[in-house]
Amino acid sequence: MAATDDRRPKYQRIADSLREAIQSGEYGPGDRLPGENDLMAAHGVARMTARQALGVLRDEGIAEARKGAGVFVRTFRPLRRRGIQRLARDQWGNGRSIWSADIESRALEVDQISVSEETAPAHIRTVLDLAAEDVTCVRRRRFVLDNKPVLLATSYLPLDLVAGSAITQEDTGPGGTYARLAELGYEPVHFREEIRSRMPSSDEVTLLSLASGTPIILICRTAFTDQGRPIEVNEMTLDAASYVLEYDFDATPKPTSAEA
Amino acid sequence: MAATDDRRPKYQRIADSLREAIQSGEYGPGDRLPGENDLMAAHGVARMTARQALGVLRDEGIAEARKGAGVFVRTFRPLRRRGIQRLARDQWGNGRSIWSADIESRALEVDQISVSEETAPAHIRTVLDLAAEDVTCVRRRRFVLDNKPVLLATSYLPLDLVAGSAITQEDTGPGGTYARLAELGYEPVHFREEIRSRMPSSDEVTLLSLASGTPIILICRTAFTDQGRPIEVNEMTLDAASYVLEYDFDATPKPTSAEA
Repeated sequence: MAATDDRRPKYQRIADSLREAIQSGEYGPGDRLPGENDLMAAHGVARMTARQALGVLRDEGIAEARKGAGVFVRTFRPLRRRGIQRLARDQWGNGRSIWSADIESRALEVDQISVSEETAPAHIRTVLDLAAEDVTCVRRRRFVLDNKPVLLATSYLPLDLVAGSAITQEDTGPGGTYARLAELGYEPVHFREEIRSRMPSSDEVTLLSLASGTPIILICRTAFTDQGRPIEVNEMTLDAASYVLEYDFDATPKPTSAEA
Repeated sequence: MAATDDRRPKYQRIADSLREAIQSGEYGPGDRLPGENDLMAAHGVARMTARQALGVLRDEGIAEARKGAGVFVRTFRPLRRRGIQRLARDQWGNGRSIWSADIESRALEVDQISVSEETAPAHIRTVLDLAAEDVTCVRRRRFVLDNKPVLLATSYLPLDLVAGSAITQEDTGPGGTYARLAELGYEPVHFREEIRSRMPSSDEVTLLSLASGTPIILICRTAFTDQGRPIEVNEMTLDAASYVLEYDFDATPKPTSAEA
């Protein structure tokens, strides 16, 4: 079928055949794909056509170019971010970091961290119900896995809630920000995560060392107390090639916790 | 600051200033941005530089070109897909469609639907615990909102479970597939959603009428019975520019339902 569909440009048909070979497993993750010379010889096309074909796969995020070495099938060995289980109280309630639910045995580092007092952007102030002059504690950090930056996170907390606590320090102590919030009487018991995806800006490409053709995932998480008060907004920017997000949940509406 | 950072290429700096103007609200959603001639005059640059600057914003998905009319700030009026609430039993238990939780008053249509009996791909068979020779009922549909395709969905169900039921028909009846599964004794009570994002293939660009620089979101949902049996896998492909995904959940581990 594909061979007789002559309306598609030649480079698209070469890209299609390579994609099929990848999907069928003929080329596995990390394998070197045929180069421009190979494709020119195999398909009788000009160098530009061969280059365009490989460019299609690069742009789709299926393949990646390594300088001087050729084009390779991208290795997708994603982090599994379990949205609900990772925020369970028994996860952070005994001193483990939220993140440790994701990384299993892989080496994670926070390589950039800063804490400051700032007026939050308008959309954050709206969520936290703050006035224009209210100041927030802003925590920015970058997470690196296997020497590759995978996540940027910026948390905003009302300063009047957290002033003087370890939340305003680089090291928030065991259990992190959420354990400190609980100690301050603002235990986070409900979360809302909103997820979008788009192409990165050039700054985001630099900060996350993104390969060409890789989108980013944006997660905006709001933490609420049992009174429904929003106490933190965390804006996260994820390398989409590094993550699978997972949400596990029941169909049944949960009973209200009135019995407590 | 930005004006003195001369190491960034000129087109990047022009793109930065346009992006800031959009983020500050100077140009709102749907507004026409300055064209190549405007940028050439305002910044004293060549046409190619002006074109590259606009190309940066297009590639980021912030702006979109309309043929013969110029470049416009993209209107992001997303569907809010509430991952957990939309699958609550009181949503589908009384005949409403799952989808209706998302669209509010907007006009949604399924413009392509097909039902067939097929051997499922290997990764689907693994999830559904099927042997290579087992046949599945495969339901494919495309959802269109405001005349724009926004979602492709392909559901796989073990044929021996659903043969003879309305699930094998184009019209599954009130409450859809999940209501029929409940009638057959396979009520879905637990769901797992896995989310990824990548750039689309050329086929996906065509099927979803994607603008340049728009990634896709992939959601793979598995539905389970109260026995933990997987009964459906639904692979969804979403236009990332059309969606915000929302998950709302509690930090507290839920009590087991042993009392029932």
